[in-house]
Amino acid sequence: MHPFDRAMLLDHVGAELVRGATEPAWANMVGPFGGITAAVLLRAVETHPDRIGEPLALTVNYAAPIADGEFDIALRAARTNRSNQHWILELRQGDEVKTTATAVFGTHRDTWADIEARSPKVPAPEDIPRSAFFEPIVWAKRYDMRFTQGPIPDDGVLSDSSTTTLWVRDVEQRPLDFAGLAAVSDIFYPRVFLRRGGFIPAGTISLTTYFHADQSRVDSVGGDFVLGSARANAFSRGYFDQSAHLWSRDGSLLTSTHQLVYFKD
Amino acid sequence: MHPFDRAMLLDHVGAELVRGATEPAWANMVGPFGGITAAVLLRAVETHPDRIGEPLALTVNYAAPIADGEFDIALRAARTNRSNQHWILELRQGDEVKTTATAVFGTHRDTWADIEARSPKVPAPEDIPRSAFFEPIVWAKRYDMRFTQGPIPDDGVLSDSSTTTLWVRDVEQRPLDFAGLAAVSDIFYPRVFLRRGGFIPAGTISLTTYFHADQSRVDSVGGDFVLGSARANAFSRGYFDQSAHLWSRDGSLLTSTHQLVYFKD
Repeated sequence: MHPFDRAMLLDHVGAELVRGATEPAWANMVGPFGGITAAVLLRAVETHPDRIGEPLALTVNYAAPIADGEFDIALRAARTNRSNQHWILELRQGDEVKTTATAVFGTHRDTWADIEARSPKVPAPEDIPRSAFFEPIVWAKRYDMRFTQGPIPDDGVLSDSSTTTLWVRDVEQRPLDFAGLAAVSDIFYPRVFLRRGGFIPAGTISLTTYFHADQSRVDSVGGDFVLGSARANAFSRGYFDQSAHLWSRDGSLLTSTHQLVYFKD
Repeated sequence: MHPFDRAMLLDHVGAELVRGATEPAWANMVGPFGGITAAVLLRAVETHPDRIGEPLALTVNYAAPIADGEFDIALRAARTNRSNQHWILELRQGDEVKTTATAVFGTHRDTWADIEARSPKVPAPEDIPRSAFFEPIVWAKRYDMRFTQGPIPDDGVLSDSSTTTLWVRDVEQRPLDFAGLAAVSDIFYPRVFLRRGGFIPAGTISLTTYFHADQSRVDSVGGDFVLGSARANAFSRGYFDQSAHLWSRDGSLLTSTHQLVYFKD
């Protein structure tokens, strides 16, 4: 079984409770990769028998590090409307809340459509070598990342811009799904590294992802690269925010994704 | 009492329950202005005896219209860490959940700081006449809005850009506070109006605001104008997302704010 699918294994132990476990392949410095936590919360809703529609919005609040091992996800549909549904989730280990989340699922309708956040013009991923990532970060080995702007900075090299743009795909080309899209929306290393020239303590506090792609659009990506670009808006008194987008190779906007990150400097 | 402060009146009826009521001055087409709901949820946390720090992130999910009258807000700190705190909130009327929310509060530290999302160059608010808004929208009369780009579109006039930029302040120059900042972060009329040339059914589903300003920065704005600019990233199958920023007159980024909106077209 692919490590992503292992991380998505959930046991529905009650109407409002599912159980999962951390997967070593997705380890971060402390606890698992935030993207895999976002993915498993989304998957908990996706696989709930009451779920209607597809993911529209997901907010994940990283309240405390998840320890290696089992975790429970309490989840319930707080409100079900005709065309959308509002979920509340809490990931716990023992009595401790480690993560909170809300998710909105809903049905799509054919409407006028347009993309204003256009993908940057970059070379094809085939024309760029696979990039190295921070060696101790286990989860990063699960992705083939090819930076076109703002790669991992060399120590002490400060940048005026926090923008990173990269092609990224699952290293085994596992076909993309909504959970995979939730994970890769958190692919960007902390923007403060670029501005301050190296690794400094930083971690996501809150992550929000909007899903523009419906199931057929996600399926059409398959195991191909997606293009991601992220930048910070402001760094202020211990926190910064990041806004990012993911596009398919044909320029379709898959997600808009935002996060608030703490940092020490 | 100022209508904003009337809308913020909350009765702490239990350790995890507060009671408020809709305020007619903040009425929208259906139910209250989304910004005032965001504000009252933030205020519920701010006034809770267990609260630590200042607002960092707020996500509000608009699950169903709030009826005129009383509402209950159930809230609890899911996790309290040394320097931050994670809240979960539900606004209910009777047995019905109308709104869900999460909030992160925390303490600030002196760190390196910078703004990458710079304010657009625009004329001073004194050099722009006050703009009219959609006449039936009651809450809009609470604000003095002066558009420098993307004003309310004339019927049938389509725009290639969804960007709106405006100066905005409370019409009575009530001094800004965090709740006021949460409200004004939702000041922008639906971006789809600009692109499609007029009023079409649309409503916010999920709103996330990141607070870059600390208390002293918010206080320093007082009753002055703030500059807001919003644009959509993508319109797709019945939904679009908007990203926006609010700056003080001296160019300090106060909030980054994002929302997912449904529309019918």
